Amino acid sequence: MHVPAEIGDYTDFFSSLYHATNCGIMFLGTDINAFKNWKHLPIGYHGRSSSIVISGTPITRPYGQTVPAKSSVPEFGPCRLMDFELEMAAFVGGPPTALGERIAAKDAEDRIFGLVLLNDWSARDIQKFEYVPLGPFTSKNLGTSISPWIVTIEALRPYIVHNFPQDPTPFPYLRHDDKFNFDIKLEVDLKPENSSEPTTISRTNYCYMYWTVKQQLAQQTVTGCNLRPGDLLGSGTISGERPDSLGCMLELSWNGTKPLRLKSGEERKILEDGDTVTLRGYCINDNDVRIGFGKCEGKLLPAVPLD
Amino acid sequence: MHVPAEIGDYTDFFSSLYHATNCGIMFLGTDINAFKNWKHLPIGYHGRSSSIVISGTPITRPYGQTVPAKSSVPEFGPCRLMDFELEMAAFVGGPPTALGERIAAKDAEDRIFGLVLLNDWSARDIQKFEYVPLGPFTSKNLGTSISPWIVTIEALRPYIVHNFPQDPTPFPYLRHDDKFNFDIKLEVDLKPENSSEPTTISRTNYCYMYWTVKQQLAQQTVTGCNLRPGDLLGSGTISGERPDSLGCMLELSWNGTKPLRLKSGEERKILEDGDTVTLRGYCINDNDVRIGFGKCEGKLLPAVPLD
Repeated sequence: MHVPAEIGDYTDFFSSLYHATNCGIMFLGTDINAFKNWKHLPIGYHGRSSSIVISGTPITRPYGQTVPAKSSVPEFGPCRLMDFELEMAAFVGGPPTALGERIAAKDAEDRIFGLVLLNDWSARDIQKFEYVPLGPFTSKNLGTSISPWIVTIEALRPYIVHNFPQDPTPFPYLRHDDKFNFDIKLEVDLKPENSSEPTTISRTNYCYMYWTVKQQLAQQTVTGCNLRPGDLLGSGTISGERPDSLGCMLELSWNGTKPLRLKSGEERKILEDGDTVTLRGYCINDNDVRIGFGKCEGKLLPAVPLD
Repeated sequence: MHVPAEIGDYTDFFSSLYHATNCGIMFLGTDINAFKNWKHLPIGYHGRSSSIVISGTPITRPYGQTVPAKSSVPEFGPCRLMDFELEMAAFVGGPPTALGERIAAKDAEDRIFGLVLLNDWSARDIQKFEYVPLGPFTSKNLGTSISPWIVTIEALRPYIVHNFPQDPTPFPYLRHDDKFNFDIKLEVDLKPENSSEPTTISRTNYCYMYWTVKQQLAQQTVTGCNLRPGDLLGSGTISGERPDSLGCMLELSWNGTKPLRLKSGEERKILEDGDTVTLRGYCINDNDVRIGFGKCEGKLLPAVPLD
């Protein structure tokens, strides 16, 4: 299998309110207000296209620089805090746009082809050392998995739900009157190497997205950035309100303070070598009509020692 | 003219010590130590490939969200602080690498095809509001200009100079014993719309780079990120020590406090509509053998009003 389109550019947003709130609480001791821009625009960063891989591709634990607790001096070695991130991503469709062309959220409909599942594998300890002031870099380009087929917006229409309430009201370029949020049930399974039985460690829903894909696309182009068909817009980690509806190990184990118990009897604060992470997504309506996204799966392989 | 290769992924580094030091002083009130990671690894961020354009392409002043002085509420309108950034960039050569494959700095030689001039147009006020915690995004994807031909490393060999002294000594994956720094003279001209005469506002040199391209490439791949030929590694703004050898308006006017006087009699704290910025680069050795990079030019057009 291959990725379903040639991905020119990949952007990853940070558009789930509960995820951003939890990051604020865990790392900055406040809440969403730690991020002064967050409620005014969908913030995001440009990711790496080359390292987007199809479901089933194994991911290798990376090496990198990290700073141990109670130290200020970095050390170099295998990542100790490998995490997954449950996301969805939108493929951009339509003809290329011109440099300088803005697309307002209200005009974005024709530009959004469909959605896939996405696992934004993240090296948390490497990220922590590298991300100020330029954002995540090598902690996120070690591999990003997507599910193999694109579910079109057309197919998702029966599952449209109300947009997340936004306060303050965004600027006009980010406004659209129509509903563009989706009831997509999302699940994460974790299966240790020597276990036959996966444990479902999270059940959440795409509808927790604060910013819609239309708003993300408007933000992507607001300064005139041109689009090409096949560009990918990641949602950012999708977390719900409940402790069992969170989208990454960091949140599920609350930064390692609340280990998860797996069916195998093992505990997890963060991913371990040999763990297989499987994301699943599906929609089902009142008439029991169901469409699925397939799965987005990857196994974490041990670090490859230096030569 | 077209860009000289299909650029799969573009990374922009932050590898000039004087530039980073000046950013620390102007914005954080300290110095390079404001960035705890800076001397341990070449930090960078993934940029946008689609908006890389060839010299001569005009750049339009963007709209975006900014926070006025003495306010905490963003407003939406044309960028007020448009800047250029004098950079060079390396095109990656050789066959694609595999996901998970690290390339140490000492093994990077065959992967670096050659250099071009690069202007990383930057919307400073938009950048200031958006960049925490995910880094620069829409402030940098409005257009990135490069010069039209690639000067190969082979052609640059006669102009090799000592690497910038590094303290502390970097980790082994970032070390290489050979010289891989270049005496490339760089100049920036600014020409206002109604003036026939450009003013050379900066004269600097590529040799001020603290981190080498080999080190940048090692950092790009340290966590296993795969490379494709045509990938582009930007140097980050190149600044020297002297006040007239700085690589952007922000530094040249010291955040607007020291306006530049142009030959036309006008002053500049930051770019104005109609300004043409031209980057030039060349090498010349003791035998007067000279090679040039051509020019990297762009004119700043006024913002296009909203519909």
